[in-house]
Amino acid sequence: MAHYKAPLRDIQFLLYQVLGAEHHYASLNTSETVTRDLLDAVLDEAAKFAENELAPLNRSGDEEGCELDNGRVRSPKGFREAYQAYTEGGWPSMTGDPQYDGQGLPHSVSMFVTELITSANMAWTLYPELSHGAMNALMVHGSAEQKQRFLPPMNRGEWTGTMCLTEAHAGSDVGLLRTKAEPNADGSYAISGTKIFISAGDHDMAENIIHLVLARLPDAPAGTKGISLFIVPKFLVNEDGSLGERNHVSVGAIEEKMGIHGNATCVLNFEAATGYLIGPENQGMRCMFTMMNAARLFVGVQGLGLMEAAFQASRDYAKERVQMRALSGPKAPEEPADPIIVHPDVRRMLLTQKALTEGSRALAYYAGLHTDLAEFQEAGEQRQQADAMVDFLTPIVKAFLTEAGFESVNHALQIFGGHGFIRETGVEQYVRDCRITLIYEGTTQIQALDLIGRKVVMNQGATLLKFIEKMNACAESAKQAFPEHAHKLSMLASEWGEMTMAIAARAQEDPEELGAAAVDYLMYSGYAVLAHFWLEMAVAARQAMESQGEDPYLAGKIETANFYFQRLLPRTGMHKAAIEAGKAPLMDIASDSF
Amino acid sequence: MAHYKAPLRDIQFLLYQVLGAEHHYASLNTSETVTRDLLDAVLDEAAKFAENELAPLNRSGDEEGCELDNGRVRSPKGFREAYQAYTEGGWPSMTGDPQYDGQGLPHSVSMFVTELITSANMAWTLYPELSHGAMNALMVHGSAEQKQRFLPPMNRGEWTGTMCLTEAHAGSDVGLLRTKAEPNADGSYAISGTKIFISAGDHDMAENIIHLVLARLPDAPAGTKGISLFIVPKFLVNEDGSLGERNHVSVGAIEEKMGIHGNATCVLNFEAATGYLIGPENQGMRCMFTMMNAARLFVGVQGLGLMEAAFQASRDYAKERVQMRALSGPKAPEEPADPIIVHPDVRRMLLTQKALTEGSRALAYYAGLHTDLAEFQEAGEQRQQADAMVDFLTPIVKAFLTEAGFESVNHALQIFGGHGFIRETGVEQYVRDCRITLIYEGTTQIQALDLIGRKVVMNQGATLLKFIEKMNACAESAKQAFPEHAHKLSMLASEWGEMTMAIAARAQEDPEELGAAAVDYLMYSGYAVLAHFWLEMAVAARQAMESQGEDPYLAGKIETANFYFQRLLPRTGMHKAAIEAGKAPLMDIASDSF
Repeated sequence: MAHYKAPLRDIQFLLYQVLGAEHHYASLNTSETVTRDLLDAVLDEAAKFAENELAPLNRSGDEEGCELDNGRVRSPKGFREAYQAYTEGGWPSMTGDPQYDGQGLPHSVSMFVTELITSANMAWTLYPELSHGAMNALMVHGSAEQKQRFLPPMNRGEWTGTMCLTEAHAGSDVGLLRTKAEPNADGSYAISGTKIFISAGDHDMAENIIHLVLARLPDAPAGTKGISLFIVPKFLVNEDGSLGERNHVSVGAIEEKMGIHGNATCVLNFEAATGYLIGPENQGMRCMFTMMNAARLFVGVQGLGLMEAAFQASRDYAKERVQMRALSGPKAPEEPADPIIVHPDVRRMLLTQKALTEGSRALAYYAGLHTDLAEFQEAGEQRQQADAMVDFLTPIVKAFLTEAGFESVNHALQIFGGHGFIRETGVEQYVRDCRITLIYEGTTQIQALDLIGRKVVMNQGATLLKFIEKMNACAESAKQAFPEHAHKLSMLASEWGEMTMAIAARAQEDPEELGAAAVDYLMYSGYAVLAHFWLEMAVAARQAMESQGEDPYLAGKIETANFYFQRLLPRTGMHKAAIEAGKAPLMDIASDSF
Repeated sequence: MAHYKAPLRDIQFLLYQVLGAEHHYASLNTSETVTRDLLDAVLDEAAKFAENELAPLNRSGDEEGCELDNGRVRSPKGFREAYQAYTEGGWPSMTGDPQYDGQGLPHSVSMFVTELITSANMAWTLYPELSHGAMNALMVHGSAEQKQRFLPPMNRGEWTGTMCLTEAHAGSDVGLLRTKAEPNADGSYAISGTKIFISAGDHDMAENIIHLVLARLPDAPAGTKGISLFIVPKFLVNEDGSLGERNHVSVGAIEEKMGIHGNATCVLNFEAATGYLIGPENQGMRCMFTMMNAARLFVGVQGLGLMEAAFQASRDYAKERVQMRALSGPKAPEEPADPIIVHPDVRRMLLTQKALTEGSRALAYYAGLHTDLAEFQEAGEQRQQADAMVDFLTPIVKAFLTEAGFESVNHALQIFGGHGFIRETGVEQYVRDCRITLIYEGTTQIQALDLIGRKVVMNQGATLLKFIEKMNACAESAKQAFPEHAHKLSMLASEWGEMTMAIAARAQEDPEELGAAAVDYLMYSGYAVLAHFWLEMAVAARQAMESQGEDPYLAGKIETANFYFQRLLPRTGMHKAAIEAGKAPLMDIASDSF
């Protein structure tokens, strides 16, 4: 079994020596300033909780799964107690508004914590994470009365939340949904329909569950323009905040799935369930995107969390497992064979994981800090730009980190060889758990269309250009220390910009050109962004060594940057060639010819 | 649930219009000539068996798994009956020697059948497949008496076989194994030790199981030079061929694993079990490779079988599932949305699967036909060259087809979206089942070292050059019909040769350069070989259309070749760049810096 250790040194190196987090938090208009001491204390506590409370339940939760017993969902052994400890630790309210019993910390902090708890136990983490998304939507779109009624118990962790979007025939195309909302005499609505794939849809860990449900009002326009968002509590809530009768929402089934068995992914039946409109009529998509955009960043962080956990497991195994001699002669002559970390291809797989994981963390945390800048600054151009940067980076974080995550956890499994296919070692669970991250909250394909369409072309490339400027500045400042990497980065920055303009030009004549380029463009963008952060990390490591002296940890950052630039970055060439081939090789073939 | 249909038209197009199978079989020295009628009849019967008997048991076998009940393994419901039907159909003896109740068909035929039955049910297929490997080893290395005693019941399917190599501490490094063989007074041996990961290690489908076990004689040299191969029957066999007492081999456990749940992967305990030496003392590795080389080709074919099944499922789904409108405007205006096959990226994923699957089949079947040439020709240069070609292609078939397979089945899952993560649709099982193929019978890493080390450098590139000649000839003959592809193929042929020489030169100074290049070299080689076969297929399709007229099926071959050359082949550039980066980015980093 793998033993997860929260990568605090990596996180601290990144936050304080690369991303300037101390300055960042000091610049925010938050009720309480996040000092380095505070942040370190939060990370330490989260690390302990993840390592000691959640990690031990990861495999047992997978083995047991959730059970539907007489209409009630039973979560795996220990999940309830861990959730109890989580609420006692005050974690659910971390980023909540102090007006509603929240602690008012910026959202980035919650992102860091999410990485740690996901590494330890992704299935468990989905319970509080869905809650977090629902709370965001309530906070932004709820009426004062709704916030007052629902947010405090959610901040206290007594109630959790869900997001109910998907229906059997409406997945990526949410506009096809059929769930109905009929007005009741008292101003509430009767919600009727069946939702599927509802993560944390029911459980025995909290007193109540607040479902946020997309549904159609009578005579609503077709498609996404006729969707509204409703609050549907599992138990109705009385005026005084106490729980009333059971609402007419029931669990039809727990889905049997490939992974995240510890999370109850439910089919939920709404049978004239009482719901309350949140936000304006027919504006449900906009409200949903409030939840969704945050959720997308967090799914990217799930990919990151799983990569980190699997990387640690395979790295430790590669140092212990002895098998064959190094090609350059015995390295552990006293042993019957050498540890497999001596073999070049084992190193290639480890370095791929390390480069993708740490590069992904830099990207995710950079985006996370920008969510703070978009929230805790005076309104104005800077805040707008931060918001645009979050918008631009969100599909990359969501799709690239999960695609890289799936590659990465599979390298981990491969390093374990046959033992990796056996459940006992725990790595195959990472592969199964990770697989959903490429799908839910918008598939890689949906993210790719969002990036190239809304976030780049519709934005006239403005935010992309901001990032390209940043790459050029980084390349310029790294010219002395890492001339080859700096050169590659600046060439890449130009190429990315030119390629984008070429796609946009083609797409003006034919919108299918966007679709044909989208996924390769997203992957290219991911590698480009990671190149930037790897050069930043290499520079920071070099500077740290200049002041602190040689250190294998810091040397490892520089070596991994070398690996990234020399052995991973060439993947951009493949994506570029695929993009330049255009739509013809995809669209020319008739459906019947497949 | 997916409905698998054996791709008979694809197989026939490939065999008769691309690979010249009629001429091939006519040229062999077999007891009975394989005519087109005979081969078509075999394929038809195999298709029926796969579709009707095996496919319906695929998901139930996965759900039920195997159980260990009082020391006996119970296979999933229906597996035993399907095996009964298989033996009644005479399938086990298909390629067996007629002297021992075999039918004497060339091995390639068994490869085609294996594809079909693996697509339908990989876990089930492993039971007869392991038998096949054991029979090969007995045929080549057994004494006349051993063959006479063991082969006829195995050909009749009454007994099955296994290969017992791996021990907990000896996986890729089989030389570390510790199982002992002590001589008994009667010329037999007492075998003691524990083997793990034994596919089809025990079951209730046949009367007896013939284990082929690697073990060490007393005072045997250390490492692979001190390993011998033994026949260890589950039930001892009397002089008259009847079953005697139970041998001292028992099932310690059935491994809990990620996939292939329908196959009993066993821990086997040998406690002074009676065994019989097969082949010379301390020559067990050579004997093992007889099993292993055939098994490696067949594992490649498993990758192929799973790709085909998953491709079919996702293609059919993409034509049925409606979700969003085409970017170029509605294609099915009468429906609430268009079938997802209109979306460019769904097509990219389908075409990737199609190109990898059909290209892989061409490679595997080409290698399969060469196994015939290596066996059923007069000894001489041609036979030797065929043997060398099989040796050269085996690691590519094994590793590339399984790596491509895993990519491909994941595209299938992605096309299903959230429904793909749910067990009911069956695609997630393909992903779980496929994952082991990249590991067992030698990981991708082991295959890659075998290819670049033994099969290319030690062979002075002789067989590689033969293949390159073939590519150049193909490019030359396709110059008129497909000038761009032909040009790319001939450039690729030169590049492959030059890159190989450069690696060999670097490796003379430093053997770790081989290890650092190996996996990228193997993947490059796979894409190069598939480019060759895609051009051959495009040429054949064009020729067929010239004589038979337009046909969406044949047009699809040409479109897929276009896709392959334009959108997949650029992957070689990424592998080339990684190879050229050499060992430094992998080996410079200290173990402690990971």
